[in-house]
Amino acid sequence: MTSLQIFLILSLFSVSFSLENVDNRVLPRPLIIEYSENIESQFKKIDDEVKLRCTSWRFAAEANNLNPWKSIPRECVEYVKDYMLGKGYAIDLETVSKEAGDYAKSVELNGDGKDVWIFDIDETLLSNLPYYAAHEYGYELFNHAEFDKWVEMAMAPAIEPSLKLYEEVLNLGFKVILLTGRSESHRSVTIDNLINAGFRNWHDLILRGPDERMKLAATYKSEKRSEMEKEGYRILGNSGDQWSDLLGYSWSVRSFKLPNPMYYIP
Amino acid sequence: MTSLQIFLILSLFSVSFSLENVDNRVLPRPLIIEYSENIESQFKKIDDEVKLRCTSWRFAAEANNLNPWKSIPRECVEYVKDYMLGKGYAIDLETVSKEAGDYAKSVELNGDGKDVWIFDIDETLLSNLPYYAAHEYGYELFNHAEFDKWVEMAMAPAIEPSLKLYEEVLNLGFKVILLTGRSESHRSVTIDNLINAGFRNWHDLILRGPDERMKLAATYKSEKRSEMEKEGYRILGNSGDQWSDLLGYSWSVRSFKLPNPMYYIP
Repeated sequence: MTSLQIFLILSLFSVSFSLENVDNRVLPRPLIIEYSENIESQFKKIDDEVKLRCTSWRFAAEANNLNPWKSIPRECVEYVKDYMLGKGYAIDLETVSKEAGDYAKSVELNGDGKDVWIFDIDETLLSNLPYYAAHEYGYELFNHAEFDKWVEMAMAPAIEPSLKLYEEVLNLGFKVILLTGRSESHRSVTIDNLINAGFRNWHDLILRGPDERMKLAATYKSEKRSEMEKEGYRILGNSGDQWSDLLGYSWSVRSFKLPNPMYYIP
Repeated sequence: MTSLQIFLILSLFSVSFSLENVDNRVLPRPLIIEYSENIESQFKKIDDEVKLRCTSWRFAAEANNLNPWKSIPRECVEYVKDYMLGKGYAIDLETVSKEAGDYAKSVELNGDGKDVWIFDIDETLLSNLPYYAAHEYGYELFNHAEFDKWVEMAMAPAIEPSLKLYEEVLNLGFKVILLTGRSESHRSVTIDNLINAGFRNWHDLILRGPDERMKLAATYKSEKRSEMEKEGYRILGNSGDQWSDLLGYSWSVRSFKLPNPMYYIP
């Protein structure tokens, strides 16, 4: 799969996402940075009261007060769409990347190759927004088979502020470990996707083994972090869009929660 | 201190807060529910870009990505003021109270008097907004002596959605334990303030002892939760505006983070 092919296909999602009905129009930029020119206009279709309630709902989700939630409220579908496609999501991603980068630069590394930064993959390094754009931004209940088809296309674009952070922490001398809820059977497509999106030089990529499929994400990820600690790694930073990437036990010294108002993984 | 006196003094804060310069104008409602009539107009003085950046900053604070932060950004003072005095804060408080109430109702209590809900006090049950309104909504660095004077006046108003939750969990049969970073020397004024604000029938009120003053809030509160567990209490709910109310160890089964963009306590 060439970069051009990926670009062509991703560009389609800006118009309308359909696996079956391929359209060849090419837009100048990938979906994730397609801002409205006028910030106010992005909310024009949404009633002020609904906007306030959905902002409140989004805060509650980000603060983990809704734990667990199954789908976004019906009235917030347009709001979440506007947030994800407008400047809000982009700025939030930049804010968390900058905070994480500032922290990373402030850390004195031991330099023995045991200083680790963990990254989750979906909605952390790679964006599945093209998929969710075709599935009501999280309102539609999660369909494993459909999502697997998307994953197997290996064309989720990079979340650019995360790619910037990723390169920063590598350059600072951190070992990068990727810890994902994706299953081991998706190792090859995941590597393809990461490389196509610009990610390089990770130290390890940990996926869910067949015996780990029934575990809660928080348990599975805590166990993996605990194993890293037993191997002598110091987990200094951890970036993830789900609280289950960050909480549990064997915490990182600092954790960075990326925004995700589309879905919740316990 | 009568209710009328409290009302008179609190009303002043809507105009301008001054410990020295008391003004007798009485406004019809306390500060915290003084909404703008037009939701949009509350942001009229703030540039759209600043609004987006400050919303992003607020999300980062609520998701604990800024841990620790010392003061709000200069450019966000007006934004935080509008959020705190406008509908945003009120709706966020109602959202978290409703979520917590729904959870509380879903819990099957053991009924042996060991089912506990913990509440923090400041910015959880009681609002110090009148104080912070006079101190640039958190931009001014925290002044312990000035804040103590305010605490000793014992007139912080109730956060109404929290009072509603408080009464709900009591009625459901939870034991309520108040766990605050306020010092033991403020026990009496704290009790006066809680009672004046409508809080009743707590099982225990835990304040910081003299030997606990140097501990991080997260450590002090975790130690106290751990002691509760050793006494056989089951901590089923925990409400606080600071992550240090909720994280650490001996976690509650569910934790509820109330909004607070004004200050951070590690």
